Amino acid sequence: MKIAPISGFPEWLPQARIVEQKVLDTLRSTFELHGFSGVETRAVEPMDQLLRKGETSKEVYVLRRLQGEEGQDSGLGLHFDLTVPLARYVLENAGKLDFPFKRYQIQKVWRGERPQDGRFREFYQADVDVVGQDSLAFHHDIELPLVMVDALSKLPIPRVRVRASNRKLAQGFYEAIGLENTEETLRILDKLDKVGPQVVTELLSEHVGASAEQAQLALSLAGITTEDASFVDRVRALGASSSLLDEGLEELATLVTEANSLIPGSVSADLSIARGLDYYTGSVFESTVEGHADLGSVCSGGRYDNLATAGNRSYPGVGLSIGVSRLLARFLHQDLLRASRKVPTAVYVAVNDESERHHASTIAARLRARGIPADVSHNATKFGKQIKAADKRGIPFVWFTTAEGEQVRDVRSGTQVPADPDTWTPPEEDRYPRVIMP
Amino acid sequence: MKIAPISGFPEWLPQARIVEQKVLDTLRSTFELHGFSGVETRAVEPMDQLLRKGETSKEVYVLRRLQGEEGQDSGLGLHFDLTVPLARYVLENAGKLDFPFKRYQIQKVWRGERPQDGRFREFYQADVDVVGQDSLAFHHDIELPLVMVDALSKLPIPRVRVRASNRKLAQGFYEAIGLENTEETLRILDKLDKVGPQVVTELLSEHVGASAEQAQLALSLAGITTEDASFVDRVRALGASSSLLDEGLEELATLVTEANSLIPGSVSADLSIARGLDYYTGSVFESTVEGHADLGSVCSGGRYDNLATAGNRSYPGVGLSIGVSRLLARFLHQDLLRASRKVPTAVYVAVNDESERHHASTIAARLRARGIPADVSHNATKFGKQIKAADKRGIPFVWFTTAEGEQVRDVRSGTQVPADPDTWTPPEEDRYPRVIMP
Repeated sequence: MKIAPISGFPEWLPQARIVEQKVLDTLRSTFELHGFSGVETRAVEPMDQLLRKGETSKEVYVLRRLQGEEGQDSGLGLHFDLTVPLARYVLENAGKLDFPFKRYQIQKVWRGERPQDGRFREFYQADVDVVGQDSLAFHHDIELPLVMVDALSKLPIPRVRVRASNRKLAQGFYEAIGLENTEETLRILDKLDKVGPQVVTELLSEHVGASAEQAQLALSLAGITTEDASFVDRVRALGASSSLLDEGLEELATLVTEANSLIPGSVSADLSIARGLDYYTGSVFESTVEGHADLGSVCSGGRYDNLATAGNRSYPGVGLSIGVSRLLARFLHQDLLRASRKVPTAVYVAVNDESERHHASTIAARLRARGIPADVSHNATKFGKQIKAADKRGIPFVWFTTAEGEQVRDVRSGTQVPADPDTWTPPEEDRYPRVIMP
Repeated sequence: MKIAPISGFPEWLPQARIVEQKVLDTLRSTFELHGFSGVETRAVEPMDQLLRKGETSKEVYVLRRLQGEEGQDSGLGLHFDLTVPLARYVLENAGKLDFPFKRYQIQKVWRGERPQDGRFREFYQADVDVVGQDSLAFHHDIELPLVMVDALSKLPIPRVRVRASNRKLAQGFYEAIGLENTEETLRILDKLDKVGPQVVTELLSEHVGASAEQAQLALSLAGITTEDASFVDRVRALGASSSLLDEGLEELATLVTEANSLIPGSVSADLSIARGLDYYTGSVFESTVEGHADLGSVCSGGRYDNLATAGNRSYPGVGLSIGVSRLLARFLHQDLLRASRKVPTAVYVAVNDESERHHASTIAARLRARGIPADVSHNATKFGKQIKAADKRGIPFVWFTTAEGEQVRDVRSGTQVPADPDTWTPPEEDRYPRVIMP
């Protein structure tokens, strides 16, 4: 029996898992502070749902019952993102939800990538979306990136800045300069970072018939980034004009201005953002961790006017998604984040002799009753060994029952003082493991 | 596109999800109070691991990459419990873990059941186990069920009582009365509840060659249940005797006596417990929610002397598992548990006019900064409608910016008073949704 990690399926040792759990908890509590309801959907969706749209939909794990008919799939696949499940959940429960429906969802997703590609095949995403019934006000386009900025600012990582663009702006501009195939143009410009302006110019010529001048204008647009609404003048200076372009400029200017008014420095305009997915219809977002630009966008999303439709009802939405596992992998593997100890335990209760284990157990129970994580020594070896067992796990305190009464020892300083198990409390920073930046 | 629930894959509306999340949080925090480290393993295991043992191992979902070779599985399957992943995790990380290793794990598991069987195919399990390297002291057999009793006692459900038996006791007894096939005998006795003594007697005769007298003795043993160690005398009264039986009686007596000494009424002896799985080697546990015996055991487990082996190393363990989803389904479907509101929001900030949305957003931000979940009205309709929108979601307070200054209204009483967004605090019971028993 081979025991080995499986490429693309990350797992953590207990100490790193404490960090992951803390990050997930922080995201969750922030989303709830902003009034988002938690939703958890099943891991599987019918294959016809999964294959409905998007480029990722090809990377699906299909499920087959081991006891099922040979070669016959169950018709179910693991979800590859949390947007497809949201669309289905909203349609399935439309009659029971209050709109606009604000939901967060923090779950694993799976991508059936080729093992040799080294990409994550199982990872956490943390999504926030607001979904309207038939209509959804634009102010949610401002609210959603700010929820993410607030949540990410509470994590022990460098500042994350959201960059925004607008699909109407891009499409309006391309159409105004005579490039009619917006989808393909965006797809090509999305590669700008990787392949450079020369190749993009060639691709635009080849695939959307762009002249040298048209390609140059498209590249000029993609080159515009500003901290405020001044991008509007720079776009205007390129000379193109259309009502769709105006609408896009207006939306993005409002977004950047209001977002920075509420949280200074939170959102900048970056017209190079293309977002390959074809379901975005307005605002689009990416974001960068300062000092970790090579990590790419850790939080992305946008506005989609048709998350789902049912009869004559439509469900427009706007939302963003954090790639939690990718973010964590960077900071944990480079040891930029660490839990202050390996276990939840704050107090290790020593056992004098197996005949006194009962007493030690009651001490631990009394500490736990007051919310102090406590464990009882698994054996009754010499005290030096019991202290070493605590220290090895990073447990800060060892409790002793001595001839002079109950005592607690700070393992770090070696100080040992009398203590009452019904009143003694560790310093607040020692009660639970903390996440530290070594 | 068909939108419908998939049988066996439960999902909750947001209000019920609040209850589920609260239950999961309570279990987690209790496990941590007892010093257990959280572990999360990938959802998949190699098929050879999954098929290694146990009856459930047949009910596996096998994964296939949609883009993979036609008809070729990935060699991976979804885990059907959290014990197989634990065994693999311990072997894979043995050099980096501290033993005895105490871990909890709260995750979804999947069973590839036939859809028409109506069983859960995706559900939450919450497991605690302690795993030793080469040896593991018996006192952990007492510790583990008490961790579960403590955790379950904090849930808003009726009292859960653990029932215990011992594999050595059963095997020692059967062998002493001349029934050599312990596995098969246990498997048959496991059906006693369902099929009754008459059929069990016939099955024992047919499959393990039991005489009427032997069958009667086995049934007599299964009939013994006591709140304390008095079961020992009743077993002795049946006349069988062996050193293995003695060992089992001693272990179970110690367990029941010490457990009830630490938490009165926590664990009783029930010699009818057979536990079909063949890897248990000592203590075995089941448990019942008072008033919900028909639900079956909601928390089960036991001692296994060979969770895993590697070379000449062995990893004995003892642990229990709560079937969280099944427990929750009962209490949520019968409306025995409910969240006090549908959303996390405690304060709904009204918007006088879209031009004043910025001000409302800053009020909400100031409340959130002090840990008060706040949302801003999605539109600027009449105040009566905004209050109704809050009330519909169960949000207790609506915030108004009036000509007389900032004010907060208790939606339930209609009382509206002046309030400062930097100091006003809701009653503690209104800050977060609570779980109530209607």
